Amino acid sequence: MISRMGARIGTLLFASLAAVSCAGSLQRLPERIAAGDVKVVDLSHTLAESSPFWPGGLPFRKELLVDYKKGYRMHKFTLAENVGTHMDAPAHFVQGRHTISDIPAEDLIAPLVVVDIRLTAETHPDAVVTVGDLTRWEARYGRIPRRALVCLLSGWADRWSNMERYRNMDEKGVMHFPGFSPEAARFLVEERGVIGIGTDTLSLDPGISTDFAVHKIVLGANRHMLENLARLDRVPAAGAAVIIGVINVEDGTQSPARILALFE
Amino acid sequence: MISRMGARIGTLLFASLAAVSCAGSLQRLPERIAAGDVKVVDLSHTLAESSPFWPGGLPFRKELLVDYKKGYRMHKFTLAENVGTHMDAPAHFVQGRHTISDIPAEDLIAPLVVVDIRLTAETHPDAVVTVGDLTRWEARYGRIPRRALVCLLSGWADRWSNMERYRNMDEKGVMHFPGFSPEAARFLVEERGVIGIGTDTLSLDPGISTDFAVHKIVLGANRHMLENLARLDRVPAAGAAVIIGVINVEDGTQSPARILALFE
Repeated sequence: MISRMGARIGTLLFASLAAVSCAGSLQRLPERIAAGDVKVVDLSHTLAESSPFWPGGLPFRKELLVDYKKGYRMHKFTLAENVGTHMDAPAHFVQGRHTISDIPAEDLIAPLVVVDIRLTAETHPDAVVTVGDLTRWEARYGRIPRRALVCLLSGWADRWSNMERYRNMDEKGVMHFPGFSPEAARFLVEERGVIGIGTDTLSLDPGISTDFAVHKIVLGANRHMLENLARLDRVPAAGAAVIIGVINVEDGTQSPARILALFE
Repeated sequence: MISRMGARIGTLLFASLAAVSCAGSLQRLPERIAAGDVKVVDLSHTLAESSPFWPGGLPFRKELLVDYKKGYRMHKFTLAENVGTHMDAPAHFVQGRHTISDIPAEDLIAPLVVVDIRLTAETHPDAVVTVGDLTRWEARYGRIPRRALVCLLSGWADRWSNMERYRNMDEKGVMHFPGFSPEAARFLVEERGVIGIGTDTLSLDPGISTDFAVHKIVLGANRHMLENLARLDRVPAAGAAVIIGVINVEDGTQSPARILALFE
């Protein structure tokens, strides 16, 4: 009896203290980062004039507008909305779907799933994430959470500093880099209710695609896509949260984004 | 003895379960947002061609590059780096200090402190946050945490849709909007070790400033600043975490940012 009461007090103590402790966990996030208990990984590339961009698009340009002799330094930026690490909003492909400014802030925070196809991509630049890759991921880490951001890790981010290697164009002008298969994209949208998908390459469709089927499936379902991601090799395959700081351009169809992954 | 053992088991149970429970809290962040246990508030204004900008600067411009008849829609953006809700990096004013791309990702997540001066600002557009405002905040909410982002809430965000009212220029061309006093900025940097300061107005210095003393103090100390913040009236004065999604432009001195506040 006394023992059961002790255990009961312990349980009550647990319940109340756990509530207090976890309720403060968000406020303590910066402190936990400083202490090394929570890691922050920057999934955005630094945006520079040399950054790779889609063929036929526009490079990022930065010009000096004002300099220190006038008291401060300020630049002018010129860019196509798809430069650097960026989001494709549904309206990029599908008229009437969400533009960048239609996407609610709640859709910018998601559980992060990383599907590693580096072993295949190393020798097969046209490799795609298949439904089999996704079910193998689930066999190891559990079911893909609802409203996740599912990203492919191909190792392509290591080529970012070299536009030619990043585009990997053959003599006919066809690009060769990994992407998602249309079947995998459909599975993620229809069977797993993802919030979006992402890639460490120039496009969610593989470089050889001519029909952009993955874009049509994902954007058509009003989900978003992230391209040119960095450092997916430094986050766990499961268990991180991702925060997508996309610039909220009114009626934009794509927009550069600062994307941070957090994990314990 | 049995009772003490029961309590002991309870305590051990608490310690281990609390660790598990809180360790999973970050991964469960999206789920807690969906359940309404964690609120997300977007502290960035939507960036549009009509968005207010610093006099003599450049407005944001968005032109159509490609449209749906070619299969997709894409825009070109032209902007001065200080458009919309943005960050000033230390190098904006002080050569040799951190540029945008020098700022570590860990400095983009901070406890958020909101200092409400709306009552004063309503009748005094030249109002500034004083050291007294900060010590009154601390008397009510406790000491400002180290590495916090301290933001002033003047109510000016309500004027965002009207550039004339946002700048609030008099007949001599002098602007009138609230900011920080140099003494308050120095107190926050030197006595409280803030990571940065922010405002819901066009500048951290009040509109009437000619010496930009607050810029010099904060940026000179290698801390960053956020301008043109939105919705600070929808977050608690203490207890939120802020995540600053600033576009990581190589050697940029300012850059647009998507800023999200999270709180329980």
